[in-house]
Parts: sequence; structure tokens; C-alpha cells
Amino acid sequence: MSLQNQLDAVPGVTAAPEAATRGFVFNHTMLRVKDPAASLDFYTRVLGFTLVRRRDFDEAKFSLYFLVLVADKSAIPAEEPARGEWLLSQPGVLELTHNHGTETDAGFAYHHGNSEPRGFGHICVSVPDVEAACARFERLGVPFQKRLTDGRMKDIAFIKDPDGYWVEILQPTSRI
Amino acid sequence: MSLQNQLDAVPGVTAAPEAATRGFVFNHTMLRVKDPAASLDFYTRVLGFTLVRRRDFDEAKFSLYFLVLVADKSAIPAEEPARGEWLLSQPGVLELTHNHGTETDAGFAYHHGNSEPRGFGHICVSVPDVEAACARFERLGVPFQKRLTDGRMKDIAFIKDPDGYWVEILQPTSRI
Repeated sequence: MSLQNQLDAVPGVTAAPEAATRGFVFNHTMLRVKDPAASLDFYTRVLGFTLVRRRDFDEAKFSLYFLVLVADKSAIPAEEPARGEWLLSQPGVLELTHNHGTETDAGFAYHHGNSEPRGFGHICVSVPDVEAACARFERLGVPFQKRLTDGRMKDIAFIKDPDGYWVEILQPTSRI
Repeated sequence: MSLQNQLDAVPGVTAAPEAATRGFVFNHTMLRVKDPAASLDFYTRVLGFTLVRRRDFDEAKFSLYFLVLVADKSAIPAEEPARGEWLLSQPGVLELTHNHGTETDAGFAYHHGNSEPRGFGHICVSVPDVEAACARFERLGVPFQKRLTDGRMKDIAFIKDPDGYWVEILQPTSRI
């Protein structure tokens, strides 16, 4: 039996979903952030994301930031509505939500999901060379949750974003 | 000033990240799930995902399930190691973590992030036709957090996965 056939036989799995699911795209993951300047710095400077859309809801006092991680920014349509339609058709978009005022509230913090009550675990950025990427994160002073040398899995690491959300770092050949 | 130039000037943004970030991919988002059979049913039957990898850590009593949402399953390499390298190079992978035993613990529940303490908000699946997709979810008995007709944003909906995690449903022309 092929590997795919074995996986298709796992309890719960529908191996051939209805045609009605055609064209569905896992578009984005949304995380709330305390301070957008800190988060945008982390995701653009440290990880290479591009900010593609910002939406400010002044009356409801929140803003949304949509980021993508693409090698070639010229692939992003310059103008609306093509730009927005492109953004909402891509896999791998990161949406950050900022509720206005949290950035100046010294005691305010979001919950990263890896202490009680648990739920969401992490996001993951795949890199061409995990050793080189982690050495650069060290040089940049990025905090680690797990270095490559920690624990049993020597080819994955976890860094922490400014809110403490875990970002797994691995390369395509990592054994997970 | 172009739209991209305006976004590149938002506080915190690095418009031209270091070349060291080339090839970085926002690969996956990990959610813990109580009952993998229920979650696999939801993500494959309702949303059309394909299970690409399962990893069982029997000693540590957890399993990982990696799913992708692709129109053409034949694009997935059939055999390792090409299969795993493909999986870890893609954007838009969903990783589900199952800690063994939670599925039979009646009182056990994960935290979806949208009540206190908040943090993670939702994942989003983009669909070609949001009205048709939501009508199908209604027929399938999928619970909604927000129907298209609820609230002010009439072109986005939120459904709930078996753990109560919110899944936003929109189409590329939705106004968010």
C-alpha cells in the first residue's frame, strides 16, 4: 500500500473530498500582537516578511496587518483590487491584529498558547540552512525557546516573537 | 507614493530585508487537537485538506498530523525523502498535535484563543464562492461563530472546528 493510501485510511480522513472544496486555500493565520512596531520589525527584518496590507478600524480601535514571505516582492500586484485578491488567494499569509492602546500598557501581554490553557502551539518558518539561520538569529539577539543543541531534535529550533509566540525554525530536510 | 512604499514606511517595517532571509517560507501553523479523528474528518471532508504525514511518538505519547490544501494531490511526491522535503518547503501547511488520551477524557478541552487569555485568533480558508461555501457548511451541520448575515462584514464568515478554533471563510474579493 502506498504511503498516501495508508494516510488516506487513517480514522477520520476523507481521501477524496467533494468537488465543492476545489479552489479552497489555507490563506492565513491570525495572531494578536501588543505592539505592531515591535512585531513588524521582527517579522520583516528578522524573518523577511513583506507588509502587503494595513487596515485601520479607528472607531473599533483596532488595526490589521497582513504579511507574506515571498522572495520576489515584484510578484505582489501594486494596486487594488488586484493586490487584495492576490493576498487573499495565497497560502501562508500572516495576519497580525493590534488592539489600540495595548502597546503602551506596561502590564499587558497576550497568551502564547504553550502554557495553560493550551491550544495554539506555534508557527513555523522553513529556511534553506537551519544552522546558518540560527547563527544569524543569535547575532541579532533573537530570544530562543529551544536552540538546535537543546533537547533531542537537533535539526529544529524555536525562536520567540515579541509577544512570546513560538516560531519553529527548520529546513526541508529536518526530521519532524 | 505607491501603496507598497507607504507600507514600507510603517513604523517597524524593514522594506529590504537582508539577503540572509532569502528562501524563508512561512511553512505551517500548529494547533493542538483533542480528538484526531474528529479533526481529520473536519479538515479533510469539510475543507478538503489532504493528510501528508503522520508521526507517532509513542514513548512521549503524542502524534503529529500534517495536512495541506492542494487542488491536485498528484503534486505531492509519493515517497520519502522527496515527500517530506516538499512538505517542509510549502506555505500553508496545517500541523495538528494530538496528546494521546485527550480524546477519551470527557472534561478535556483546548483553549481557542478568543476568550481570556487571548492570543491566537483564527486560521482562514479562502474559497472561490463564499456564499456557496457557507451554504454547504450549513447543509453539513458545521457550527458557525459568525454567519455571513451576522455583524457588519457581510462577506466573511467564521466556522468552528471540532476544538472550537475559529476558521474564517472569505473569498478573494472579500473586503477585509
